[in-house]
Amino acid sequence: MPSREAWVLTLGNEVVQGRVVNTNAAYLGRRLFILGLDILGNISLVDDVGLVSTFLKELLGREPKLIVTSGGLGPTYDDRTLEAVARATGRPLKLNEDALRMVEEWDREGGYELTEERVKMAYLPEGAVPISNPVGSAPGSWLEVGETIVISLPGVPKELEAMWEGWVEPRIREVIPTRYVVEKTFRVVGVPESSAARIVKKVLRIYDSVYIKTHPKGDEVRKPVLDVYVLASGSNRLEAEELVAEVTGELKEGLRELGGVIKEAE
Amino acid sequence: MPSREAWVLTLGNEVVQGRVVNTNAAYLGRRLFILGLDILGNISLVDDVGLVSTFLKELLGREPKLIVTSGGLGPTYDDRTLEAVARATGRPLKLNEDALRMVEEWDREGGYELTEERVKMAYLPEGAVPISNPVGSAPGSWLEVGETIVISLPGVPKELEAMWEGWVEPRIREVIPTRYVVEKTFRVVGVPESSAARIVKKVLRIYDSVYIKTHPKGDEVRKPVLDVYVLASGSNRLEAEELVAEVTGELKEGLRELGGVIKEAE
Repeated sequence: MPSREAWVLTLGNEVVQGRVVNTNAAYLGRRLFILGLDILGNISLVDDVGLVSTFLKELLGREPKLIVTSGGLGPTYDDRTLEAVARATGRPLKLNEDALRMVEEWDREGGYELTEERVKMAYLPEGAVPISNPVGSAPGSWLEVGETIVISLPGVPKELEAMWEGWVEPRIREVIPTRYVVEKTFRVVGVPESSAARIVKKVLRIYDSVYIKTHPKGDEVRKPVLDVYVLASGSNRLEAEELVAEVTGELKEGLRELGGVIKEAE
Repeated sequence: MPSREAWVLTLGNEVVQGRVVNTNAAYLGRRLFILGLDILGNISLVDDVGLVSTFLKELLGREPKLIVTSGGLGPTYDDRTLEAVARATGRPLKLNEDALRMVEEWDREGGYELTEERVKMAYLPEGAVPISNPVGSAPGSWLEVGETIVISLPGVPKELEAMWEGWVEPRIREVIPTRYVVEKTFRVVGVPESSAARIVKKVLRIYDSVYIKTHPKGDEVRKPVLDVYVLASGSNRLEAEELVAEVTGELKEGLRELGGVIKEAE
């Protein structure tokens, strides 16, 4: 049976030294777990290209199905994650034309100058496919090495999440046999996000293999508007759909009790 | 020069699979960083005693000064962190009489029965010193292996933090040359914790090597009471004291602007 083993590497001094809480690890852990991958660990390391490549090499030696890294893709001198990937995999960094176009396009739209530091973001390990970043300038990298896929994403949570949901996860579901996944979004008007958080927490305590997120969408006649996103998986389509329906039902009931009005998401 | 290298291992499926956000990693990372230790990484692993002992062995091979583990000290079958420490260090688990007294005392006070599962919590690696747990039943373990100290703490944040601040950190400061550390606590009346959080966040953005925590202390004539704890370090006493004074001043100013009344902590 092919490996379903997965590892997450979250890179950056700010995470290791506790200046920020590592929400990327929780996000990626949860998404991989729901896909049915066998996620064994998360490793956070300081910005040290030697240390990162050593750990990457050890993990590659286990021949897992997936290694996901976050952080260290930006233009500054300490953003060296892809250099560590290159060292660990023996795939030298090369200017990737598609990645360069992504950086150029972002820079043109934002009115940035295409400096040497910004071109650096288009250097990917040889053979990598660049991952377009819809909310930032640094492209990600999808690299297949033997049986392992090494995916590198930026550390900014909104960039990482947009790239994961828009491109990475759909592609994983194409190439790896995962659990059947169903998503649903609905809208609630009249409940502030902080109150909704209590309902979400209660539901998550009951349903173990579900991912729930609330997105504030501004106000409607002075009442807060929230989109509630639910993701769940099952061993088949029916099981996944039933689970999403059940969780959505519980959420709606709790939100109605707080005075919320349920609508379709737009 | 002796090693100042430190590693944190946060253990448990719930962390790796993203059911909880890993606040212990941030807490320990921050405290070690402020002490001036060279914290290189945090490794979270699922509850697999073989996997945990493999990683522990690799880390011990680097001969760091400190390895801190959290989680897996409880009475249930999947709480096997000390078994992993025993395997990795070659120090077999033995019933520790002092640890047993700690468990017995906790059980007597709480009216629990001293079952076999609860006695299990008193088995420590041979040569370990038990760490008393003032807010829970599982003792911790302090084990010196060559030049490395392996410290094992429970995963419940309030237990881990109480043991760290009450026993572990003072002991580390006795045996390892750390930076000079100064703490200060003051009280503010009339500012809810959620509003104080914004001030704390602002101050932390300016002062990089400081740890700040707020502790709600109930109400005083219907106004919320908060104790604000500040910890900072410097290369000497004066530097640390100046930093704490500066940070405390900024916090008080921000809290007064929100209508808070500053008092001495009790």
